[in-house]
Amino acid sequence: MSVRIGVVDTTFSRVDMASPAIAVLRKLGARVEHKTVPGIKDLAVECKRLLDGGCDAALALGWVGGAPIDEVCANQASMGIQWAKLLTNKHIVEATIHEIESDDPKELAEMAVDRAAKHAKNAYILAKDGDDLSKHAGQGLRQGKDHVGSIKVKRK
Amino acid sequence: MSVRIGVVDTTFSRVDMASPAIAVLRKLGARVEHKTVPGIKDLAVECKRLLDGGCDAALALGWVGGAPIDEVCANQASMGIQWAKLLTNKHIVEATIHEIESDDPKELAEMAVDRAAKHAKNAYILAKDGDDLSKHAGQGLRQGKDHVGSIKVKRK
Amino acid sequence: MSVRIGVVDTTFSRVDMASPAIAVLRKLGARVEHKTVPGIKDLAVECKRLLDGGCDAALALGWVGGAPIDEVCANQASMGIQWAKLLTNKHIVEATIHEIESDDPKELAEMAVDRAAKHAKNAYILAKDGDDLSKHAGQGLRQGKDHVGSIKVKRK
Amino acid sequence: MSVRIGVVDTTFSRVDMASPAIAVLRKLGARVEHKTVPGIKDLAVECKRLLDGGCDAALALGWVGGAPIDEVCANQASMGIQWAKLLTNKHIVEATIHEIESDDPKELAEMAVDRAAKHAKNAYILAKDGDDLSKHAGQGLRQGKDHVGSIKVKRK
Amino acid sequence: MSVRIGVVDTTFSRVDMASPAIAVLRKLGARVEHKTVPGIKDLAVECKRLLDGGCDAALALGWVGGAPIDEVCANQASMGIQWAKLLTNKHIVEATIHEIESDDPKELAEMAVDRAAKHAKNAYILAKDGDDLSKHAGQGLRQGKDHVGSIKVKRK
Repeated sequence: MSVRIGVVDTTFSRVDMASPAIAVLRKLGARVEHKTVPGIKDLAVECKRLLDGGCDAALALGWVGGAPIDEVCANQASMGIQWAKLLTNKHIVEATIHEIESDDPKELAEMAVDRAAKHAKNAYILAKDGDDLSKHAGQGLRQGKDHVGSIKVKRK
Repeated sequence: MSVRIGVVDTTFSRVDMASPAIAVLRKLGARVEHKTVPGIKDLAVECKRLLDGGCDAALALGWVGGAPIDEVCANQASMGIQWAKLLTNKHIVEATIHEIESDDPKELAEMAVDRAAKHAKNAYILAKDGDDLSKHAGQGLRQGKDHVGSIKVKRK
Repeated sequence: MSVRIGVVDTTFSRVDMASPAIAVLRKLGARVEHKTVPGIKDLAVECKRLLDGGCDAALALGWVGGAPIDEVCANQASMGIQWAKLLTNKHIVEATIHEIESDDPKELAEMAVDRAAKHAKNAYILAKDGDDLSKHAGQGLRQGKDHVGSIKVKRK
Repeated sequence: MSVRIGVVDTTFSRVDMASPAIAVLRKLGARVEHKTVPGIKDLAVECKRLLDGGCDAALALGWVGGAPIDEVCANQASMGIQWAKLLTNKHIVEATIHEIESDDPKELAEMAVDRAAKHAKNAYILAKDGDDLSKHAGQGLRQGKDHVGSIKVKRK
Repeated sequence: MSVRIGVVDTTFSRVDMASPAIAVLRKLGARVEHKTVPGIKDLAVECKRLLDGGCDAALALGWVGGAPIDEVCANQASMGIQWAKLLTNKHIVEATIHEIESDDPKELAEMAVDRAAKHAKNAYILAKDGDDLSKHAGQGLRQGKDHVGSIKVKRK
């Protein structure tokens, strides 16, 4: 049976982050349930509702404003998402863009789309409960920007 | 059957935020239960009590003083509201005004009323468990000030 | 039947905050259970024990030292109190004095007593599960100092 | 039957804080269960295990390093301890030393021992579920340093 | 029966922290279950899943980026791990490297490996529910760097 992924985005976001994520998920063969909430602080409970309703994992798409108070809210949102995961025993992958990451709206938008798409794939892999990610362990993978790669270590 | 919304405000607030919110909710056809608590740290449990008592969603109307300690309390209040949502599996929409948002009391009051009214509508939509908000996803909607709009992105 | 209020104070406090609170509660006709713990971080669980034991609401009387670490502890204490409320579905009103609020010990002490007494009344009203506080909504009420009053808003 | 107290210390600590605490507890007639964990972030769950296993209260003996990240960890540890108390409905008294409290290792060590011993007695009293602490309410008691005393207030 | 340890690492990490940890655990005779998640915020729920699935303890291997937002995420991750421990009543030992600990990638990598290996042993000891760690109590043990040792105290 195909994997079912909940995708939650916000009306606060300045970019449509759900469409690129859903495109990736559908291409991978996942079924998608999409909900929209006002802002990042509403993501956790909506993800929990989708997971309780049968989704195998969720993708939380957040956009964080540029004021200090927005970062405080982002922390509250992420804390809520931590609890939602522990209460459901399922993964919620956060793909969040912070306005302080760039002064250029175009760049922000591109980062948002890249991060949403890459994390959509992560959510899919985690939902399958496979360990396919283990072959990428320690590789310095990044979302919203280029991968940084691994540091070579001489094992003693 | 009509939607039932819990509205909780505070005696600490310098503005009557409940009346404009309740006016919006009644116009939309919702039934309203209104409670008042001393301050923002008392909002979460009162919202939870209303949700446990049958409300479909709640609106938490908070006023945050201008001292640094007030922002710390606001964070505690919002954390409590995150838990209250996860424990009830229902939405609590926060409409909160921070005194640091403006030096002008009149402006603060207007922001408070605008935010309360707009978020009252959000609470109503979420309570109906419809996905009407999805058509507003990624549009940069704001409460207490003008909407900022979406950034156009070229999809690759 | 009369309302039962749990009152918890600390040995860390430099002022007897329980006596003025208990005096107010008794005058209102409430039954009081009084416990003392070492410091503010011990308040949440003691309040929860009293609420589990049948109290209708609790009053947490805290004194916060003047060092930065004390403010960190105060935050932990308040977070614990948020959870205690949500786990019991009852109100715990916090009446807390921070040494950084004044350099004058006498003034601190007076604020502590005023805050404890006013919040004792709040705890009593909330415990009765009445909505008597709604007539004071949005009035800018303060504890430990003078009320600041409401800002007049022209309703659109 | 005698009171049973769980004592948890760390391998991270630079001082043996358990021995002076256990000496106090044994002199008071308590039975003691002693466990050692790597660092402060491991204290909460170990205390919870001891409390679930029948201890009446626990004493968490923590040593916090001098770097900013250590203070962040201390906050996480204390938050965990808050939850552990609320989940067990029992007291966990924290006796924690922060390296930023003094540049002198000897002084730090003495504070650690004094704090551990004094809080061991607090844990014992709380475990008996007596309210013996109420006669010390508001007296400005301190651990790891001298008591500061109460501020005299004229009751209105 | 042999002890079963869950090991969770990330694709974000720039170093393979799992291999040195698993080598230590296997040498000690433990059975290992290894999972990889995208980043540190995904560690808590994956550890909880492994513990719910029968592991006796877990080792969370985290790599924290060098930007301030990364430290905020690290705090969220650690808070989640606190809850995961309390919900399972089992130990999760965190071995986390912060990029701010060194400007030299080689040094970071070596610290990561040392910390992972030492904490793997800690997780093993805690999983056996023995108190073997008590003989190392108060010795100033460190992971990722040299032990700092204990401060000698004259017992009064």
